Amino acid sequence: MKPTGPLPPEFASQSGELAIAGRPTHDWVAAAGGTPLFVYDLAVVAARAGRFRANFEKIDLHYAIKANPLPALLAGIAPLVDGLDVASAGELDRALAVKPAAAISFAGPGKRDDELAAAIRAGVTLNVESEGEAARALTLGGRLGRSPRLAVRVNPDIELRGSGMKMGGRPSPFGVDADRGAALIRSIVAAGADWRGLHIYAGSQALDAAAVIETQAATLTLAERLADEAGQVPPLVNLGGGFGVPYFAGDTPLDIERVGAALAEAVERSALTAAGTRYAIELGRWLVAEAGVYLTRIVDRKVSRGETFLITDGGLNHQLAASGNFGTVVRRNYPLALAHRMGAPAAETVSVVGPLCTPLDRLGDQVALPAAEVGDLIAVFLAGAYGASASPTAFLGHPPAHEIVAPLS
Amino acid sequence: MKPTGPLPPEFASQSGELAIAGRPTHDWVAAAGGTPLFVYDLAVVAARAGRFRANFEKIDLHYAIKANPLPALLAGIAPLVDGLDVASAGELDRALAVKPAAAISFAGPGKRDDELAAAIRAGVTLNVESEGEAARALTLGGRLGRSPRLAVRVNPDIELRGSGMKMGGRPSPFGVDADRGAALIRSIVAAGADWRGLHIYAGSQALDAAAVIETQAATLTLAERLADEAGQVPPLVNLGGGFGVPYFAGDTPLDIERVGAALAEAVERSALTAAGTRYAIELGRWLVAEAGVYLTRIVDRKVSRGETFLITDGGLNHQLAASGNFGTVVRRNYPLALAHRMGAPAAETVSVVGPLCTPLDRLGDQVALPAAEVGDLIAVFLAGAYGASASPTAFLGHPPAHEIVAPLS
Repeated sequence: MKPTGPLPPEFASQSGELAIAGRPTHDWVAAAGGTPLFVYDLAVVAARAGRFRANFEKIDLHYAIKANPLPALLAGIAPLVDGLDVASAGELDRALAVKPAAAISFAGPGKRDDELAAAIRAGVTLNVESEGEAARALTLGGRLGRSPRLAVRVNPDIELRGSGMKMGGRPSPFGVDADRGAALIRSIVAAGADWRGLHIYAGSQALDAAAVIETQAATLTLAERLADEAGQVPPLVNLGGGFGVPYFAGDTPLDIERVGAALAEAVERSALTAAGTRYAIELGRWLVAEAGVYLTRIVDRKVSRGETFLITDGGLNHQLAASGNFGTVVRRNYPLALAHRMGAPAAETVSVVGPLCTPLDRLGDQVALPAAEVGDLIAVFLAGAYGASASPTAFLGHPPAHEIVAPLS
Repeated sequence: MKPTGPLPPEFASQSGELAIAGRPTHDWVAAAGGTPLFVYDLAVVAARAGRFRANFEKIDLHYAIKANPLPALLAGIAPLVDGLDVASAGELDRALAVKPAAAISFAGPGKRDDELAAAIRAGVTLNVESEGEAARALTLGGRLGRSPRLAVRVNPDIELRGSGMKMGGRPSPFGVDADRGAALIRSIVAAGADWRGLHIYAGSQALDAAAVIETQAATLTLAERLADEAGQVPPLVNLGGGFGVPYFAGDTPLDIERVGAALAEAVERSALTAAGTRYAIELGRWLVAEAGVYLTRIVDRKVSRGETFLITDGGLNHQLAASGNFGTVVRRNYPLALAHRMGAPAAETVSVVGPLCTPLDRLGDQVALPAAEVGDLIAVFLAGAYGASASPTAFLGHPPAHEIVAPLS
C-alpha cells in the first residue's frame, strides 16, 4: 500500500456520496453529460481569494490564467481578483473578455511579434523578458503609434527554497539578470514607454512559509535596489507567486497567515511603499487546484499477479500531472477516493489506471480504497490547476474530458 | 556541453539548409503556413517498411496508430502495412477510413461498452484484456446479433530486457495473466465467438537485438503453450512490437537483420506455423519516429548568468517527449540542429527553450550549435512518433503546430 495525498478541506470530512458545491457527484455527471469530467467549484476559489484578502490587505491579487484557462471558470474568477496574468496571445484574448486591459499583464520568454503587437494594441502591460524583446516591443509600438506599457521581468539572484520548481538564482530564460535590470528600466523610460514596474518570480509550489517569507523579503530588497539604480519608482512590483498546495502524503498547507503578516511588515518598511509603489502577488495553482475534482468511471476491474487494477475511462490524457509524468521525478499519489463511499474504511489495495495503452497511465498506485465495482466513480482531487489544459488530450484518440463549473450560489 | 542524440540516417550527412524529402525547410514552412511545424516524410516510413519486409518475409506488418494518428500520414501508411492496431474508438474511426475492418485490431485496457459495440459492429478484432471485458463483448455481440471477433491479449511471464517501457513479467493492466489465457480462449470459443488469436506485448523502445530475439522466442513458446492448453490453433499471433529507435547519445540502432533472421528460424521451428498460424509485429515508433522533423523558429536570443538561451516559438506544448517530461526519469537531448547550417561546425553552447512560462520547456540543454540568430529555424529530429498527438497542445494557449506530410514521389 502506498499513501495518497491529503484531501482538500472542503472534501476531507465528507461521508457517503461525494458532494461538490453541495451537489452529489452523480448529479454533476448527469449535468455534464458523462464521464470523465472535471468539476470546478468556484466557491472554493472564492474561499481561497477571501483568505488572501484577509491576510494581504495591501497587496493586489492576480490570477495566473495558465493554471486553468477555462472561459467559464475565468469569468467567475475575474471579479475576485485585481489582475490577470497571461502567457500567450490565446490567453490574452480570454483575459480581455473578462477584465479591462489595464488589469492584464503578459509574461513569457518567447513572445512573437504578433503577440507583442496584440498586447500593445490592447494596452496591456508586457513583462519584457530580455533586452531584445524590449527593443522589439518599442519598435512595434512606434510602428503602431502606441506607447507600449512595459514592465521588466527580472531573473532574481535568489531562489525560492523548497519550491517545486525553481525559477530564480540560476541561468534562466525568464527575465533579465538582476544586474542588468536597472539599465533596461532606464532605456525603456528613455524611449518614452510607459514603464509599469517589475516582475520578479523566484519559484512555484512552495509549502514552507519561512522560505516564501525569505524570498519575498529578498524580492522587495531587489526591487528597492533596482529602483535605486534606475532612479525610477516602479508603479507596481509583481512579487510572483509560488504558493503551493499539498498534493502528496506528508505535505502540509502553506501558512498563509504567517506569510501575509511578514509581507505586511516588509512592505511597511520599504521605501518604495512610501514612494507610492503597489505590490501584487500572482497565484494560479493556489487559487484553483483544490477547487477541481476529476471524476472518472471504472470500466473494468481485474487481478494480475496478485495486484488488483481498477481501469477507468479517464487517465493521463486528461490529468497528466496526477500520473506523475509532468515535472516530477518520483511518482507519488494525488489524493483520490471512491466517490460514493467517502469516509468509508478501506477494504483493499488497488491500482487505479486509465484506458491508455501505456504503463505511464496510472492515477493511483497501490492505494487503499473501499471495495469498488465496475461503474463506480473515482474522484481524483487537486484537479483544478494544470489538469485538462496541461494534458495530452489527443493522445490515443479518446474524447476530451467534460468540464463544468459550479457557480457561486 | 551536453551531447545530443544521433540524427536519423536520412539527415545525418546533410550540409547547408536541411532538406526534407528533397525540399528545403523554408519551402516546407511556406507550404505549411508558418512555424512551429511538423514535417513527416512518408519516404522515410516507406524505407522502414521496406527494411521490415526484407527481413521479416513471413511476418505481417501492423502499424500502431497511437504513434502518429494524423489522417494524412495514416492514409500514406495504410498501403505499406498489412494491418492497423488502434487503441480507442477515435483511432478506430481513423483506421476504418483507410483499411478494411478485417485488417484492424483494437487493444486497450479500458474499452468502454460503446467502444466494444463500435468494434463489433464494424467487424474489427478486439484484443480482449480481461475476462470481464470478454464477457462484456460477448453480451454486446449477442445484443447486436453479431459474433464478435476476439483475440486474447496475454500478459506474458517474460519482460523485454532493456526496453524503455516494460509491459510484461509483472502485474499489469494489459491482458490476462498467461496462466489464465487458455481458460479464456476456451470460454470465448465455447461462446461461439470468432477467436482470432493472441496478442502478446512485452515492452517497447528496445535497441538490444538479443533482448528482442529472446523475447520473441519466449513469446512464441508461450503462444504454443497456450494453444496446447486451450486445444485451439490461433489464426494469428501478434508478437507485439518494441523495436526502438536511437534518441540519445550512445544509442545504437536495433539490428533488424539479426532479429528478422532469428524470428524466421523460430517461426520455422514452431508447431503453430505448421498448423497454419500467421504472425504479426505491430510497430509504431520504429516506422514513423525518424520520419518526423519538428521545426521551430528562434524568437529571442539571450544570455543569463553566462548561459546562452535560444527561445523558440514551439516547445513542450507540441513536443513533450523531447523536453524530457514524458516517461523519462533523466532528461537527455534529442538530436537537434540549426536548420540552415547542417553539418556546420559548432560555434557555441546554447540551451534551446520553448515559449512556455515553465523551466520544463527545454528542447535542448546546453547543446553545441553553429551561431544562431533570431529568425533562424531549429530542427528537432525523431519527431514523427508521440509528438504532436502526445503533447499538451492547449497548455498556455499557443496555437497548435502545423503538420504536413511529404508524400511519396
